Amino acid sequence: MAATGQNLAVVVHRAGDLRLENRPIPEPGPNEVLLRMHSVGICGSDVHYWQHGRIGDFVVKDPMVLGHEASGTVIKVGAGVTHLKPGDRVAIEPGVPRETDEFCKTGRYNLSPTIFFCATPPDDGNLCRYYKHSASYCYKLPDNVTFEEGALIEPLSVGIHACKRAGVTLGSRVFVRPIGLVNVIIAKMMGAAAVVVTDLSASRLQTAKELGADFTIQIKNETPQEVAAKVESLLGCMPEITVECTGVQACIQASIYATRSGGTLVLVGLGPEMVTVPIVNAAVREVDIRGIFRYCNTWPVAISLLASKRINIKPLVTHRFPLEKALEAFETTKRGEGVKIMLKCDPTDQNP
Amino acid sequence: MAATGQNLAVVVHRAGDLRLENRPIPEPGPNEVLLRMHSVGICGSDVHYWQHGRIGDFVVKDPMVLGHEASGTVIKVGAGVTHLKPGDRVAIEPGVPRETDEFCKTGRYNLSPTIFFCATPPDDGNLCRYYKHSASYCYKLPDNVTFEEGALIEPLSVGIHACKRAGVTLGSRVFVRPIGLVNVIIAKMMGAAAVVVTDLSASRLQTAKELGADFTIQIKNETPQEVAAKVESLLGCMPEITVECTGVQACIQASIYATRSGGTLVLVGLGPEMVTVPIVNAAVREVDIRGIFRYCNTWPVAISLLASKRINIKPLVTHRFPLEKALEAFETTKRGEGVKIMLKCDPTDQNP
Amino acid sequence: MAATGQNLAVVVHRAGDLRLENRPIPEPGPNEVLLRMHSVGICGSDVHYWQHGRIGDFVVKDPMVLGHEASGTVIKVGAGVTHLKPGDRVAIEPGVPRETDEFCKTGRYNLSPTIFFCATPPDDGNLCRYYKHSASYCYKLPDNVTFEEGALIEPLSVGIHACKRAGVTLGSRVFVRPIGLVNVIIAKMMGAAAVVVTDLSASRLQTAKELGADFTIQIKNETPQEVAAKVESLLGCMPEITVECTGVQACIQASIYATRSGGTLVLVGLGPEMVTVPIVNAAVREVDIRGIFRYCNTWPVAISLLASKRINIKPLVTHRFPLEKALEAFETTKRGEGVKIMLKCDPTDQNP
Amino acid sequence: MAATGQNLAVVVHRAGDLRLENRPIPEPGPNEVLLRMHSVGICGSDVHYWQHGRIGDFVVKDPMVLGHEASGTVIKVGAGVTHLKPGDRVAIEPGVPRETDEFCKTGRYNLSPTIFFCATPPDDGNLCRYYKHSASYCYKLPDNVTFEEGALIEPLSVGIHACKRAGVTLGSRVFVRPIGLVNVIIAKMMGAAAVVVTDLSASRLQTAKELGADFTIQIKNETPQEVAAKVESLLGCMPEITVECTGVQACIQASIYATRSGGTLVLVGLGPEMVTVPIVNAAVREVDIRGIFRYCNTWPVAISLLASKRINIKPLVTHRFPLEKALEAFETTKRGEGVKIMLKCDPTDQNP
Repeated sequence: MAATGQNLAVVVHRAGDLRLENRPIPEPGPNEVLLRMHSVGICGSDVHYWQHGRIGDFVVKDPMVLGHEASGTVIKVGAGVTHLKPGDRVAIEPGVPRETDEFCKTGRYNLSPTIFFCATPPDDGNLCRYYKHSASYCYKLPDNVTFEEGALIEPLSVGIHACKRAGVTLGSRVFVRPIGLVNVIIAKMMGAAAVVVTDLSASRLQTAKELGADFTIQIKNETPQEVAAKVESLLGCMPEITVECTGVQACIQASIYATRSGGTLVLVGLGPEMVTVPIVNAAVREVDIRGIFRYCNTWPVAISLLASKRINIKPLVTHRFPLEKALEAFETTKRGEGVKIMLKCDPTDQNP
Repeated sequence: MAATGQNLAVVVHRAGDLRLENRPIPEPGPNEVLLRMHSVGICGSDVHYWQHGRIGDFVVKDPMVLGHEASGTVIKVGAGVTHLKPGDRVAIEPGVPRETDEFCKTGRYNLSPTIFFCATPPDDGNLCRYYKHSASYCYKLPDNVTFEEGALIEPLSVGIHACKRAGVTLGSRVFVRPIGLVNVIIAKMMGAAAVVVTDLSASRLQTAKELGADFTIQIKNETPQEVAAKVESLLGCMPEITVECTGVQACIQASIYATRSGGTLVLVGLGPEMVTVPIVNAAVREVDIRGIFRYCNTWPVAISLLASKRINIKPLVTHRFPLEKALEAFETTKRGEGVKIMLKCDPTDQNP
Repeated sequence: MAATGQNLAVVVHRAGDLRLENRPIPEPGPNEVLLRMHSVGICGSDVHYWQHGRIGDFVVKDPMVLGHEASGTVIKVGAGVTHLKPGDRVAIEPGVPRETDEFCKTGRYNLSPTIFFCATPPDDGNLCRYYKHSASYCYKLPDNVTFEEGALIEPLSVGIHACKRAGVTLGSRVFVRPIGLVNVIIAKMMGAAAVVVTDLSASRLQTAKELGADFTIQIKNETPQEVAAKVESLLGCMPEITVECTGVQACIQASIYATRSGGTLVLVGLGPEMVTVPIVNAAVREVDIRGIFRYCNTWPVAISLLASKRINIKPLVTHRFPLEKALEAFETTKRGEGVKIMLKCDPTDQNP
Repeated sequence: MAATGQNLAVVVHRAGDLRLENRPIPEPGPNEVLLRMHSVGICGSDVHYWQHGRIGDFVVKDPMVLGHEASGTVIKVGAGVTHLKPGDRVAIEPGVPRETDEFCKTGRYNLSPTIFFCATPPDDGNLCRYYKHSASYCYKLPDNVTFEEGALIEPLSVGIHACKRAGVTLGSRVFVRPIGLVNVIIAKMMGAAAVVVTDLSASRLQTAKELGADFTIQIKNETPQEVAAKVESLLGCMPEITVECTGVQACIQASIYATRSGGTLVLVGLGPEMVTVPIVNAAVREVDIRGIFRYCNTWPVAISLLASKRINIKPLVTHRFPLEKALEAFETTKRGEGVKIMLKCDPTDQNP
């Protein structure tokens, strides 16, 4: 159980410069745990930092360990930790508030401006052998939930947070703009009666179907109003909820036109800073526009769902690489192959 | 399509006096539709009015047609009706507000004190051949939803309203006290991660399992605190939500003890007017206690779920009788046979 | 009490063509009341229909009676009316749903697409001597509330609906963009701890101060970001809530930048159909953007506030004209004189 | 500024045994501040611990410093504290979560079962010269808010939390059962249109009137139903909200009967563990029953209200004693004299 030897880590130094290098094994503080990392998924943002050295205002100035979709095993606990012990298998919530500010106290800790977040500069991620983390943000996995399911809670959380913010409930009709497949899964689980998905890609629409989408529309060069009309026509009514995952201006426009009066549009995808939108159309029909920033309070929800076997996300993992082959895994991800590529950080256990 | 001939109806005259008799065929008003009734389920309250002539303060003083779980076909529309036409198959919401009062205007029309309600004295129900109803409270059935599914929306609505008032959402752990099987179905559909059901009867617990309950507890003579402890032990945590369907004092007590701090207890079952409960225990743990009165805004939700084929309630119908054999059907219901007994009111179509 | 003689009415025929003419006295339907009109305020929209013959898609095609801020006395009731009787003094809610659709059933009847609305083409308003209206949307005024207070409930309702949609609550810090003085009053009444108002006009800011604004900022040519910074500096923090009443693109931009993470921006003012806004800034800080369309469920709230004497809106009425001088009153309104100009429709009682 | 000398403290040893004794001056931890205490109010619970040595399951086993309505000045800050510095005047929130558990993460930290709470056994309070506290739960007072106002935020918080849980909003009609004067103040500030208060004592009703109650009813020996009828008669309608502050069985019964269908009853007062209530009456009218446990997220609200001068609670302080005369102050409180008795802990500044 001891943490000995070196701590191999995947580190981005600047745009285009990704390295496998050894770092010291950290020592957990009083409220922290030291983890032997097991499975870490590669996220689009990891690739983006590698390719561009930045995302918006977040710039890689110093070398930074990547990775934030992760699970591992507790091997050491700080003096103040009571709910975890060495040997516990845990999923890691990557955002940890540094202060108990008004956002934390009111249950929206994701909005805390000084929050620590794995693999967002300058905070190191957990794509490495050994990693320490706040014990309060490590969640014990039941025996019937795998490490990889634990690592997938992070992308699942985006869908949970989006659908909760959207107010998806029993009988909801939901329009999901491309990419947001996790939103399809979650919206159905929350009782949505019908989910319609649009995309440019026939193959992605096929995946959406398999994940539970009731209707799909392949977009060509329709105007935003035409897209909205097709959605209404297919559903037999306008959807109460739209989840927009592209950030593209024309898509946001279509999403406003498509949403039923009194409904909600959730913006998941982020595009250019300034967009031109039919704000009056939304306003006079009381269509609320809500964004999401990461997530909060989603790990316990996801774990209870995974433990109940109500959701099967294992097929999302299409490729696995040992940590030593991380650069190859990143190249594969960059090429757009597969759905989710998992890095296996524990040389003694490469199982799911 | 014409409504000719006589209007056979199931009428309770007083306690113990149930008759099949002919009534005039009604004429729809400007905002009403005339329906040829197709399928009407027998509810426990119908049997209760027959056996006891009253439920609480609602007393059968004049002969009253029974029946409120119903569907049929529009055969005539009033002058002001625009969304329905003869031939439309509809499910009937039995409660129709008589006034546009504050409860209606704020979306809680079920609480309107002057509401019309089928088969609640003195308002006639729809266990008959021809029945007129407010067009706004008749909901068109899609082609892929049967009449019987349409009639079952009424009992389903109790579960929908209870689970909505309870705030069941993704990942909820829910404790359902006996009888409320429809709550099990709905809670799971709304994303509940785990549902535990208690009952005295092993066979009802078996049914609960088949409907999706994750855990069951057969109650013998445990104290309320012991029941609460068993629920927590099985779930691995206290449930955020408890749905109490008995009205029995000891069960309400157990429900309070069982519910997690900050959670919600919904009272569905009604027992004696005054009960002794550990109100301080609920109060200092901020466990909210909420009742339900029938339902509101549930028919569109149920229809979209039935149309999506996400829910299969057809097996709930275990017996069918033609309207002419209604007295036999009531006797069967009284004996507790089967789950749901359906009366078939259209002599030319006795299909589901 | 009888409604005899002619029914003088203020009628717009087309852009620029406003006439005083006699119309028949209407006969109330079963659920309607006939009113002798007492006080009707002139709204900016009335002037706009007179000047331009249209507002957006609403076009005056046939002659239309203006007026929708109104109160009067019941002189006749339809057969089905039980809560009003001749002699009752009432305030009139101008929007009356024509159908009991999903919006009505869920308490958001203002969104019903077929709603009747006074003085929105093609529906006649109530700037006349005699007017019939749905009894359910006429609200009895207590003895201690004047007719003019009753007429002012309409503009007050916009503020009530906006502040309710904004979620103003105890301790809220609120930023109100120009014009929306009624929002200042209501926000303070709902417990707002601090309200800051910006405007180009020093005199309007002075009025805002008198109505309870805690801080004011006179805008010159600041950028949106600079406006936001000034608001934060004055309040000592970013406001949780912004109420935007201009519809101007730069103002909407400033409103987004100004609102605290997790807060709410309510759009009251309507400008051009398409506007360019920093939607990513709002989205990643979870600043919700909500519009309002008129109001719902505000008359009972306003009447109880007026009856309690907690609010004094009488000083808002700065000019009064008898109905016969309506054209002069409209010219005065067009010139921007005064705050609220009231037309007195009852020749026998021109009191407030 | 240095903390030298001894730390005089008011310590309860067991029932009936209250002592003034010296304790060591504590050393603040990394996220704590050391405070020179200024003003501490005596609460009924302090007197109760002195008189009875326990409140329910909370038993004084070891000597415990009393006091939890407090304010003081920062004289030393831990290494991790950034938002406070020596010299800052602060109000102290007495409840500090020890763990970042699910209740903390969802914004309901008051429900955290392991929370530290001043002067609840075994946790020491702050009725002393020097006291250390979590910096995150010390709130800087603006210059225009006095220390005593800062100390009064604690009792004010009970009213804020109760009225927020009750959903008091613009136009609410609120029924407050005796004692809860702070609820009268807060309900009016949140926009309540009418507040009716009942009590046995004419003098307390007079105080309620002075604090803003619109109506008062002196109770003699009415039945619960008679009390409810009187409330409705006075208000002209049933109140949407009832705040029950006695915990007495008959009062809880009256509160249920009195509350309007669809409304909310908040239980503030705590009486016997088991009470007999008309739960069916509440349930079938969808009257929600909600308790409160202390409060959360109220200090920032209270401070912004106090800073805005919208609320004047200074007159609530009727007696002041220097810390050295604490025993005399407790005797005075026990005799029921005055409204709020304040202990002045800083010998160099006994000002409000």
